[in-house]
Amino acid sequence: MTIQTETDQTGVVQSSGSGAPTCLAEARRLVGPELARIVERLDDANQIVVRYHLGWTDADGAVADGVEGGKALRPALALLSARVAGAPAAVAVTAAAAVELVHNFSLLHDDLMDGDTQRRHRPTAWTVFGRAAAVLAGDGLLALAAEVLLEDPSAAAATATRSLLAATGQLVAGQSADLQFEDRMDVSLAECLQMAAGKTGALLACSASIGAQLAQADPYVVARLGAFGAEVGLAFQFVDDLLGLWGDPATTGKPVLADLRCRKKSLPIVHALTSDTAAGKRLDGLYSQPEPLTEDQLHEAAAAVEDAGSRAWAEAECDRLLAEALRHLESIGQPGSAVDELAGLAAFVVRRNS
Amino acid sequence: MTIQTETDQTGVVQSSGSGAPTCLAEARRLVGPELARIVERLDDANQIVVRYHLGWTDADGAVADGVEGGKALRPALALLSARVAGAPAAVAVTAAAAVELVHNFSLLHDDLMDGDTQRRHRPTAWTVFGRAAAVLAGDGLLALAAEVLLEDPSAAAATATRSLLAATGQLVAGQSADLQFEDRMDVSLAECLQMAAGKTGALLACSASIGAQLAQADPYVVARLGAFGAEVGLAFQFVDDLLGLWGDPATTGKPVLADLRCRKKSLPIVHALTSDTAAGKRLDGLYSQPEPLTEDQLHEAAAAVEDAGSRAWAEAECDRLLAEALRHLESIGQPGSAVDELAGLAAFVVRRNS
Repeated sequence: MTIQTETDQTGVVQSSGSGAPTCLAEARRLVGPELARIVERLDDANQIVVRYHLGWTDADGAVADGVEGGKALRPALALLSARVAGAPAAVAVTAAAAVELVHNFSLLHDDLMDGDTQRRHRPTAWTVFGRAAAVLAGDGLLALAAEVLLEDPSAAAATATRSLLAATGQLVAGQSADLQFEDRMDVSLAECLQMAAGKTGALLACSASIGAQLAQADPYVVARLGAFGAEVGLAFQFVDDLLGLWGDPATTGKPVLADLRCRKKSLPIVHALTSDTAAGKRLDGLYSQPEPLTEDQLHEAAAAVEDAGSRAWAEAECDRLLAEALRHLESIGQPGSAVDELAGLAAFVVRRNS
Repeated sequence: MTIQTETDQTGVVQSSGSGAPTCLAEARRLVGPELARIVERLDDANQIVVRYHLGWTDADGAVADGVEGGKALRPALALLSARVAGAPAAVAVTAAAAVELVHNFSLLHDDLMDGDTQRRHRPTAWTVFGRAAAVLAGDGLLALAAEVLLEDPSAAAATATRSLLAATGQLVAGQSADLQFEDRMDVSLAECLQMAAGKTGALLACSASIGAQLAQADPYVVARLGAFGAEVGLAFQFVDDLLGLWGDPATTGKPVLADLRCRKKSLPIVHALTSDTAAGKRLDGLYSQPEPLTEDQLHEAAAAVEDAGSRAWAEAECDRLLAEALRHLESIGQPGSAVDELAGLAAFVVRRNS
């Protein structure tokens, strides 16, 4: 069986005008009203923070126009996974909203913990509303996400919620490891991969299988979809790390070389640091100096990651993970448009530039 | 029917040596090992923070001896509520652990948000491990609490988890309102009561009924136990607010007049501010001044609360809420030792001094 990814002859992912697979816009259309209904259940003060964070309103509460919200990658995975299991996408609409809310709970808290001041070209919520408000808004979203999923009429709602909460636990553990790494110079590549699997892989694995769970699909199908999501999640993190080093601030919305500035131990950086190359040792020297890195030193550090072969390695890993992800899809043995769209989504994740 | 509270002839709650009802020690004995098993599921870094916060270890990870942990009020309520429903306490052990973990999630985050540096006579977790670690440890506890409760074999596990998550949402909304109040001088008593019902009442109402839910008790019994817990929770907050003004720092573990120092809008304070008395106006003047209150002014403010009649009002409210709580218990119409112990616990909450 061969899976049709949504690419044209030149290997470029087919676009719906903006370069993104159409299933993302479809997910936003289907899940948007559900998200709006759920967020309305928060108290007024938390709602103001969450609506701003989601790009629905400005800091003063006025409806925001043309503000870039999330890509809806996780909702799209959830909806497609229901369709792979032969159920209508509607079966997974609440689950799609729930995974998106857990994702946004983690963004609200991570931006605060990482001290990030910009997200999607706007000031982060904690810089606008304060630290306490960002903590509470995240807390409220997490509790609400699990609560609404438990209210889902599916007989598998409790099982799906357990998956969501387990993924949340792995996500928190991954973020915890990421923060620990900032103070350690001896992070191994294996530790770094495990961190990324928790921080990014777990919720994508959950998203890519939760619709099938709610549709009460065969456990084999649920497991294969979960494995697909985990590979896509790790690929997502590799792309994120590459964009954190060589992405265009105009498209990523993040400052140039931001990851090096705060001495993040991202995957390509740890690969370089542990590469036993001259370039890796140069990077180690820069990362070990007590003073902040100058602009010149930041560019030197980025060049060292490239010279150590770590950029090429990370790019090759993206391709390998995409191929692995597609193999998991194929092993389901149920070709169809939903499987093709999942494959297209995976390819889009790996080829994105923001 | 008359409920036997665990009080002797002089109205003093019967003690197990330390002045606390024996069901609290029993709850710690039953739920302690379950809590230990659950906390072990956190990643190492979060586990260190949580174990310290729970009083199990010192800041360096060494086993702490003689450190005061929580009172286990919520676990005791959960276990007794199963017994009221005719089930063994064991039915509610996981739920008892879950409500205690949600309580501690909120303490970890609240201490950070409120800037509190001491809890139970020890430095708060965020002052020891940093803000990010406290946020993550709380996040991890919340997700884990809901996850373990969903794993409970009871057919009512999903319903109980929904209750727990709904209570968590109310708790977060209550804390959100409490923080808003600090910047507002026009807080009404009704708003303040609603805030306390969310911040403290919701989780106690959930705790006092969750065991009965898991035992699949009649919904009427579950509702009466929940109403009992809500009244006890509000009384708990009144006592907390009284202790925040006139408690002995040696027993409360909090600085003297701490609530006035940070201009909290606690129940007695809002009662005084809205009392339309000369003393209330004096307090309003002190709370409106831009400079920090001097030690003399703090004592003046405390005296104003008392002169406005707000201390006496709060004390009377405690008694009234206790009586209401006991009426809910009586209305269950199932006298027995578990009901008597719940009544004793309610009386203890109202009479505690720390």
